[in-house]
Amino acid sequence: MSIITLTTDFGLEDGYVAAMRGVILGLGPSLTVVDVSHAIAAQAAPQAAYVLSTVVPYYPPQAVHLVVVDPGVGSARRPMALRCAWGTFVGPDNGVIPAALDFLGAWGAWQAAHLTRPAYWRAAEVSATFHGRDIFAPVAAHLALGAPIEDVGEPLSDPLRLPDIRPTRTEDGGWDGVVIHVDHFGNLITNIPGSAVAGGAASVEAAGVTMPVVRTYADVAVGEALAYVGSSGLVEVAVRDGRAAARLGVGVGAPVRLRCNPRES
Amino acid sequence: MSIITLTTDFGLEDGYVAAMRGVILGLGPSLTVVDVSHAIAAQAAPQAAYVLSTVVPYYPPQAVHLVVVDPGVGSARRPMALRCAWGTFVGPDNGVIPAALDFLGAWGAWQAAHLTRPAYWRAAEVSATFHGRDIFAPVAAHLALGAPIEDVGEPLSDPLRLPDIRPTRTEDGGWDGVVIHVDHFGNLITNIPGSAVAGGAASVEAAGVTMPVVRTYADVAVGEALAYVGSSGLVEVAVRDGRAAARLGVGVGAPVRLRCNPRES
Amino acid sequence: MSIITLTTDFGLEDGYVAAMRGVILGLGPSLTVVDVSHAIAAQAAPQAAYVLSTVVPYYPPQAVHLVVVDPGVGSARRPMALRCAWGTFVGPDNGVIPAALDFLGAWGAWQAAHLTRPAYWRAAEVSATFHGRDIFAPVAAHLALGAPIEDVGEPLSDPLRLPDIRPTRTEDGGWDGVVIHVDHFGNLITNIPGSAVAGGAASVEAAGVTMPVVRTYADVAVGEALAYVGSSGLVEVAVRDGRAAARLGVGVGAPVRLRCNPRES
Repeated sequence: MSIITLTTDFGLEDGYVAAMRGVILGLGPSLTVVDVSHAIAAQAAPQAAYVLSTVVPYYPPQAVHLVVVDPGVGSARRPMALRCAWGTFVGPDNGVIPAALDFLGAWGAWQAAHLTRPAYWRAAEVSATFHGRDIFAPVAAHLALGAPIEDVGEPLSDPLRLPDIRPTRTEDGGWDGVVIHVDHFGNLITNIPGSAVAGGAASVEAAGVTMPVVRTYADVAVGEALAYVGSSGLVEVAVRDGRAAARLGVGVGAPVRLRCNPRES
Repeated sequence: MSIITLTTDFGLEDGYVAAMRGVILGLGPSLTVVDVSHAIAAQAAPQAAYVLSTVVPYYPPQAVHLVVVDPGVGSARRPMALRCAWGTFVGPDNGVIPAALDFLGAWGAWQAAHLTRPAYWRAAEVSATFHGRDIFAPVAAHLALGAPIEDVGEPLSDPLRLPDIRPTRTEDGGWDGVVIHVDHFGNLITNIPGSAVAGGAASVEAAGVTMPVVRTYADVAVGEALAYVGSSGLVEVAVRDGRAAARLGVGVGAPVRLRCNPRES
Repeated sequence: MSIITLTTDFGLEDGYVAAMRGVILGLGPSLTVVDVSHAIAAQAAPQAAYVLSTVVPYYPPQAVHLVVVDPGVGSARRPMALRCAWGTFVGPDNGVIPAALDFLGAWGAWQAAHLTRPAYWRAAEVSATFHGRDIFAPVAAHLALGAPIEDVGEPLSDPLRLPDIRPTRTEDGGWDGVVIHVDHFGNLITNIPGSAVAGGAASVEAAGVTMPVVRTYADVAVGEALAYVGSSGLVEVAVRDGRAAARLGVGVGAPVRLRCNPRES
């Protein structure tokens, strides 16, 4: 048994995901296809990378992770595949796959291919607009079924990196980051690493609101905003018994500032 | 391995889809069950037919496509199955299955059955309101497992046709159509075939807005409405960097007019 | 083949469900994992129990039903498993599993375990906040693969019961209940059993509106509210050609009163 996971911004209203599944199952009837999420915000590359990174560790390294969330859809992105100890990743060369690996930690040894071999694509006809179905799905199926990554394309050594996936240091020793994901409960996951708040008091500013970095929800009053280090090791913003995204009026991409040792400020 | 796809307006809040899956897996533990969409607008028959038609070509002809979207739920629809070169279709005799085949193109040879054999239904008890679980799911499972279509019911030669699935010609050589689907990105898919705009300038009117039929988004300014021939061969309406459904305030069923050679108008 | 069903309030925006699937498939590649719903309202225990109960009868008794909807998440809930003739249930000891069995009817013989054996959990590390992935998913996989319930923990004989899952009698012989589920069509499913209206005229009050208990939608005018005994045997509230939840402005937890023989009131 081999597994292919799917992460897209395609939504569930259309037949896009089912078309990809059909292509995969047509090539490998025994493959298991798993949805990660199809509710990634349109073209939100850092969000796609983050959500995928929270799932990859729970899959065997033989799994293939197909991720199609592309701010540059229609432009000349190279289609790519990348294989490393975490698993095999397939999608546009738009920075999402490297960003997912960055969230996961060390990449280790890796090998990537520019998908240039139509023999591994869907038949002759490739739509200009639906590479997910016509290139990525069949290549993912072939890789899950055992094709060597060398076979599916030319070596690719310089995958594109997302420019803004890392927070920057502020003059006073804090961090300027952004919201990379809003979870089902309205919590804001930022790109600021939890290590930034290790060993000292800290506060977070988002949407003009300053809130303490605390250990648990119970450390603030009901309805108050708080920040904490979430289960994925990143600083998160929440509202006790509320939805932070709605209460603060912010979403993916909103700026977030972490101040360390705020009593000195 | 055999595949059953599911297309419904049941949503994901309830246990309806899981109940159908349970019935199918109980009869055929080795069957693979795939969701097309459960977010079809309530009772939107043309939308169900369209979405299903975008998926069918990517499945093997042995697949069974179960589609339960029924404007006449509760009335005396005949339950039906239809087998042709595209695959096998199971659902109410309400026009959705023929409309899906119309979107796909030529039907070719086909054979249909009125599902009259309780031996292929779920046990003795059939709910008046949930034929999806009690008739369609078990019949789909039996057909996917190899039952001949002759066995599941009496021959059916006159499947109901949806009256309004085809656009009509206007006096000046254009087309009057309707929106049959709003996709995840807010684009409006119409029932006007792309061939209607082949070889000439054209414009589209929707919600009182007139827009050009162009090749790419880049042919209009940001925020402007445009029309184009989409990947399924139908005329679609979009707004550059926006959501057409929200911007124009229209949804499934809204009228759309195509004018050909608009410079003469 | 064995089946594991999943019922949660995790939503589809995050990777939580896919992480649980990965853990399950890692332990049992041949297991079939089915979504019941991940759109249960946050921490709505009676709703989770109700939705699960509408699905269980359509699965073989060998199936394992994992249900993680927990008003007390983060508190010291015992993780539990329960096996009976309906199937095997895994989740927090928060009343949801007993309530699902109550909706199903007679429990019959049952055996439960407090999940105390880390050998059946995910590796060494168990997150304080994600028992679904680290305890429930692996235990469900082991049980689906044939582990005896005695092996996964100590006997548990006193599962927590939800206090408010049953309606109460009113002085005049009616019932005071609550809305336990809003379905995809906006209908309100209450916890009042259909038997309460057997054999006599009755009316229902919800959100200040009094409506008759009727047999079919056609018994009231378009736009009027009505009550009826739904397919799961519970009293439901609807609006003809409308969405009752929106029209009445109520949701899960809203009070509903049934009056019997209203002509006497």
